[in-house]
Amino acid sequence: MERRWNGWGRTDIAPTLPEAASTMLAERLGPGVPLGEVSLEEAISLVPPSRLSESELWSTSPELRLRHARGQSLPDWLALKSGKMGHYPDAVALPDNDDQLRALLDLAREDNLVVIPYGGGTSVAGHINVPDSDRPVITLSLARMNRLLALDPISQLATFGAGVSGPDLEAALNAQNFTLGHFPQSFELSTLGGWVASRSSGQQSLTYGRIEQLFAGAVLHTLNERWVLPTVPASAAGPDWREAVLGSEGRLGVLSQVTVRIRPLPEKERFYTSVLKDYDQAVEAVRSLIQAGLPAGMLRLSHPEETRTQLALALSGSKKQWLDRYLALRGAEQPAMLVWEGGEQHRAIRRHLNRYGAVMHSQTLGQHWQRKRFAAPYLREALWQKGYCVDTLETATDWANIESLRLAIEHTLRHALASEDQPVLVFTHISHVYRQGASLYTTYLFPCGQDFDHSLLRWRRLKHATSAVIVEHGGTISHQHGVGRDHAPYLNTEKGPVAQAALRQLLTHFDPKAQLNPGALLEEDECGV
Amino acid sequence: MERRWNGWGRTDIAPTLPEAASTMLAERLGPGVPLGEVSLEEAISLVPPSRLSESELWSTSPELRLRHARGQSLPDWLALKSGKMGHYPDAVALPDNDDQLRALLDLAREDNLVVIPYGGGTSVAGHINVPDSDRPVITLSLARMNRLLALDPISQLATFGAGVSGPDLEAALNAQNFTLGHFPQSFELSTLGGWVASRSSGQQSLTYGRIEQLFAGAVLHTLNERWVLPTVPASAAGPDWREAVLGSEGRLGVLSQVTVRIRPLPEKERFYTSVLKDYDQAVEAVRSLIQAGLPAGMLRLSHPEETRTQLALALSGSKKQWLDRYLALRGAEQPAMLVWEGGEQHRAIRRHLNRYGAVMHSQTLGQHWQRKRFAAPYLREALWQKGYCVDTLETATDWANIESLRLAIEHTLRHALASEDQPVLVFTHISHVYRQGASLYTTYLFPCGQDFDHSLLRWRRLKHATSAVIVEHGGTISHQHGVGRDHAPYLNTEKGPVAQAALRQLLTHFDPKAQLNPGALLEEDECGV
Repeated sequence: MERRWNGWGRTDIAPTLPEAASTMLAERLGPGVPLGEVSLEEAISLVPPSRLSESELWSTSPELRLRHARGQSLPDWLALKSGKMGHYPDAVALPDNDDQLRALLDLAREDNLVVIPYGGGTSVAGHINVPDSDRPVITLSLARMNRLLALDPISQLATFGAGVSGPDLEAALNAQNFTLGHFPQSFELSTLGGWVASRSSGQQSLTYGRIEQLFAGAVLHTLNERWVLPTVPASAAGPDWREAVLGSEGRLGVLSQVTVRIRPLPEKERFYTSVLKDYDQAVEAVRSLIQAGLPAGMLRLSHPEETRTQLALALSGSKKQWLDRYLALRGAEQPAMLVWEGGEQHRAIRRHLNRYGAVMHSQTLGQHWQRKRFAAPYLREALWQKGYCVDTLETATDWANIESLRLAIEHTLRHALASEDQPVLVFTHISHVYRQGASLYTTYLFPCGQDFDHSLLRWRRLKHATSAVIVEHGGTISHQHGVGRDHAPYLNTEKGPVAQAALRQLLTHFDPKAQLNPGALLEEDECGV
Repeated sequence: MERRWNGWGRTDIAPTLPEAASTMLAERLGPGVPLGEVSLEEAISLVPPSRLSESELWSTSPELRLRHARGQSLPDWLALKSGKMGHYPDAVALPDNDDQLRALLDLAREDNLVVIPYGGGTSVAGHINVPDSDRPVITLSLARMNRLLALDPISQLATFGAGVSGPDLEAALNAQNFTLGHFPQSFELSTLGGWVASRSSGQQSLTYGRIEQLFAGAVLHTLNERWVLPTVPASAAGPDWREAVLGSEGRLGVLSQVTVRIRPLPEKERFYTSVLKDYDQAVEAVRSLIQAGLPAGMLRLSHPEETRTQLALALSGSKKQWLDRYLALRGAEQPAMLVWEGGEQHRAIRRHLNRYGAVMHSQTLGQHWQRKRFAAPYLREALWQKGYCVDTLETATDWANIESLRLAIEHTLRHALASEDQPVLVFTHISHVYRQGASLYTTYLFPCGQDFDHSLLRWRRLKHATSAVIVEHGGTISHQHGVGRDHAPYLNTEKGPVAQAALRQLLTHFDPKAQLNPGALLEEDECGV
């Protein structure tokens, strides 16, 4: 497959927007402002000279440097479409093995180079963006360290090169009748090492666990040495360092191998889409379901606003009319859509949902969701062509706080561009549930600004206002996307000064000159230089 | 209830050893050597003068200092029975609230005092033992900070003072139809703060999770400040500091409040004791059961040696004869005993076990186990009276390694006193299972030595040889008892130099003069003094 250099995913997938969706967006938001995009050739011509000379250890190819300069956040998209990346890595290293990786880090340490570990480049929080640095910057891609290295069927453990992508990892495991079961929306492009480094959560984490539960051991190359984190099922031998590597975002070192807990492929998965009459009751339904211990494999509950918008984006006129009529007939004027996986317990789950106002269960729509589960990011391209910017926010909080947090987030987003008299389309779903609470995943759309800078300004206003609201209302700044550079300013409020000082101390211990991914996780100047 | 000052548990419980057990021990180990015990009065008379004067913040009462000097390891028992504690705290503080706790720590910081946080005093790894220090030592008991402070039934979270004991915690939750479900063998005396600080695991952790999964948030008083660790169901916002507090064993600070994830009381628990014909097949049975995702609430599998010994300790002559005949009839010459909890799925679990050679399932024996689940430590007293020393070891490892680790541990223990021509009685059960692996819990008995010193020497030989074997064979030095002072020397091998250097850095950051529980977790002199 060829990968789109300035947007999401494979070049052979290019969805278009249904006419009804375009009409709805124009009505709700006003006309789109297509800003176009520069060609790859033009973008390459804008790449500045490297501060490093060519080496066995890396390449200074302008195209390679361009292709590794940005992730997939909206600011990244604006940079990619405009061809102006801000900063570029001076070189891209693609080590084949541990020895080459070690040699690169040893050299980086000696020469005070900055190193940015790079997995699938799918970050939406600025994890792999190049900081403004006086020091040369090398982006270190793990793409070639992507093989299955060991599989223990007794302990159900598999070790991979950290750069293995989701599809390659599942293919290697499926061939031996195993699965990891980790399916984030970025699955097609993101990598095992990236999942660990950013504390990723897959769509079926209710069955398989978050990456925290799947991560059993690793080889991590710190700036100074090779660190083997042993696999052990559970331990009381002091703090668990795996938990410090999880979410370390490249700041402690570079993951070269990761051992994960695998499972036999499931015999039968059953995805359903259900519709419930009332959102508040639907929230009660999923909370009571998880707290009762019913073994659902996924619970993804859309607010009526999202339900409406998703149906408009997904269904053609006649199908949509039929569904609207049916739901009205059943008294679901404000339908809340629940996508779930039920395995052997699907009947018990259906019965539970019926008690909370479910009016429809469709395995056909559930299977449709399953087939299209990684497709949503491609819609960004269709929206971009029509002149609309789209981004998402996500957080998690305790059940007692979930509705007030959702209302605060949505209110803030809807009014953040009021000074320009510009409405914002905002909708939310509950994406992951726990006994204690749940995550909220909010999508927001607005017409692009008059130009790239104006579009970025709009995003900054929306992002900053909402991020501040999230942490002030007791949510975490990220449930599944990580911190990167975009969320780092909000960690102080979320974690408090004691935790932040300890984190700074830990990073400084491993990396006294802040050479590894500086600015990610912890907002800082290039401390220690 | 009155608590035994020099042994385990309540003074009103005093089990005796069945005659058959005494006979068996004499046959296997030779005659016991009763060493007796000094009276409380005598032990108090041996308490040296305090280096601190009496204060509002603490007491220097010799009896209080004696009662807080030691835990429950075998060396602790030898100290308690002989009346010679080695070192004693200079004072015991029993703060009533956060302000008093804070005041104590502020004073300790200013005056360079050593502070040992104390929960239930049930450590079997030397967590709360007083180090040899030039500085005055205060043992800080959380016993009075033990109340239910908040309960959120929606998010199913409860906040307690960290010093709450197991029974008091469950009573407060049960009154509102909730449970924590954390039942370590030390349940009667151990405390919530201690569980968190030492990464405790309860007998039903398959249902409820280890304390890591139950721990949602806390207030931790570091030497310098009050640290609030917020509750959030899950987060990708960098490393999770809760995981550093878990297992920190008082070295980062003192837990004053802990928030835990609670659940509604279960409608029905079903405990069973099953007997399987063959141990290897029984290991396969529990591994395949957990890896198939069958929802057992507990799986505790005794090796035939333990099965035999436990039956001898528990059953009278005629009952034992009957059982032996029945098992022989069913072809179970080497029976392996499995205690398990099955809830709604008990039939599926029984069917699964039948496929792996189960010859008996008894709910009566299962319920007997449930009733007696916290009784085993009381047997130590009966054994002591007969002149036998008993201790336990525990570890965890991946399934592929479980049998070779068990054999190495048992072989080492059996031969560790060979130079004295002294056999050691050794038996093991698998106490906790995971998809990836399981924990091993080994009990060993030997006649006490000629005197207290000789007994301690025997224990040191056994403990050191086996601890080294555990970490060299890829086991963790502790699955559920923690590190304390006894296991600290073995962490270097288990964790490796990178992890150990980082841990040292972290402890030094929070506590530069090593005033909080020095010597626990990390073997060290009084660094930084």
